[in-house]
Amino acid sequence: MNVRLPPGVQVTAVRAFRSAEPARALEAHPDELAVEEPLEIRVAGDPLAVTMRTPGHDHELVAGFLLGEGLIRSRADLGGIHHCARPDSEGAHNTIDVLPAPGTVLSIEATRRGTLTTSSCGVCGRQMIDDLLKRLRPAPASALFSRSFIAGLSSELAKQQPSFERTGGLHAAGIALEGEGLCVVREDIGRHNAVDKAIGRLLLDDRLPARDALLVVSGRSSFEIVQKALAAGLCGVVGVSAPSSLAMSTAARFGLLLCGFARGDAFNVYAGAERLAD
Amino acid sequence: MNVRLPPGVQVTAVRAFRSAEPARALEAHPDELAVEEPLEIRVAGDPLAVTMRTPGHDHELVAGFLLGEGLIRSRADLGGIHHCARPDSEGAHNTIDVLPAPGTVLSIEATRRGTLTTSSCGVCGRQMIDDLLKRLRPAPASALFSRSFIAGLSSELAKQQPSFERTGGLHAAGIALEGEGLCVVREDIGRHNAVDKAIGRLLLDDRLPARDALLVVSGRSSFEIVQKALAAGLCGVVGVSAPSSLAMSTAARFGLLLCGFARGDAFNVYAGAERLAD
Repeated sequence: MNVRLPPGVQVTAVRAFRSAEPARALEAHPDELAVEEPLEIRVAGDPLAVTMRTPGHDHELVAGFLLGEGLIRSRADLGGIHHCARPDSEGAHNTIDVLPAPGTVLSIEATRRGTLTTSSCGVCGRQMIDDLLKRLRPAPASALFSRSFIAGLSSELAKQQPSFERTGGLHAAGIALEGEGLCVVREDIGRHNAVDKAIGRLLLDDRLPARDALLVVSGRSSFEIVQKALAAGLCGVVGVSAPSSLAMSTAARFGLLLCGFARGDAFNVYAGAERLAD
Repeated sequence: MNVRLPPGVQVTAVRAFRSAEPARALEAHPDELAVEEPLEIRVAGDPLAVTMRTPGHDHELVAGFLLGEGLIRSRADLGGIHHCARPDSEGAHNTIDVLPAPGTVLSIEATRRGTLTTSSCGVCGRQMIDDLLKRLRPAPASALFSRSFIAGLSSELAKQQPSFERTGGLHAAGIALEGEGLCVVREDIGRHNAVDKAIGRLLLDDRLPARDALLVVSGRSSFEIVQKALAAGLCGVVGVSAPSSLAMSTAARFGLLLCGFARGDAFNVYAGAERLAD
């Protein structure tokens, strides 16, 4: 039987052990792994960053990454995105080049330096967080979200994770719109990449800011996830697992709905409860 | 009752919702969150990197980070590590400065640039992976590890995760030595940080390379985790969850034992099975 694998999944041979069994009983059997490969992102030929990701939806990943870094604000800033190697060469799919729209300049130096700051010693911790928050805008005012809608999102996300089911090794992120449900779900070995891909799809479709949209993530909600949701102009983040302290305080500061431990029909609300309706 | 919280845990008020319950039933109750704050790492005053981490064991984190980046090879390369702000200022614990040992130069430019490469277009993907692998050395030849020892590691790790139990938001990494069991366990909101802290402890104790040591991680094993284990001269990685494709191929290439799905008394072996004994 020739079963077609979902993208991002690779078959390997694995040996399963149990402490109690004799070693000779342990034969190799096929297992499925999440694929991880580096993607080099360039801007007009200039190296910008390398991310370890699961191949697939690379254009979305790059669009979402640039938005999250504050390098672009909308679809209009993008001229083109293309894989830049000869299609017949090995690794051809692992380098991508971005061309800004005519007249647009992408200031890549800050991203190339990472999140390095030059804040003076003594106020560093507070200053660093302030620097990180500086480029964020408040979440858009929006319609309310019903509790039953939010309560259904985690099981809907689980249904749309074909590769996780096979490998146990992929994170997922989706975009939820009340009325439409989960309209975009992407999987990746990196949680931030899955978010970039889902948000990047909205950006490429010129649907940002998305005033009625929530970001749904399969894992924990760290500061980085909240930052990406705010950069995209979304209204909230719903996570299957726990948020961090900084994710919560940032969501509260910028009016973002932040739900965690969304499992079964239950969820906790950590910030933005005013966005909930019955 | 005044219960002392584990480090890295913060209390907040949270509202728990169930889809079926009327909204008025939902009162706020206390909940515990994993703390996430930025740490700026400097070398002789020069900004090197900022990582989002759970405060605590910062010296270990920095030592492990520098080792994983290839900036230092052993304890002897380090002059001193200290938090650099005035102790009374807010955020004083979020900036740390590293002084190299006299006569040692840390080439921080490559780290500051991230993993940017200058490989020519056309062979980029393959070249990038080769660049990443270039600074790795084969895992040390070592004594064998018994199956029963490996089979017990996941439950031993779970027992030593006090903050995960309370928050559901922290990853853990530990160092296992046959005969000693899990001798160092560290928790952090970032999986790579937990690994850096555990390995950093060994480095500060001048116990690296550790020929009989395994790295045990609470989550997935990506390339980065395998890379850090190899940079530290460990013999293997045991993960509670799945490895990635690149983690497996890298482990196989450098003779590292790689186990995944270590749960209960069972585990899978993805590479280095020759290191297993009955």
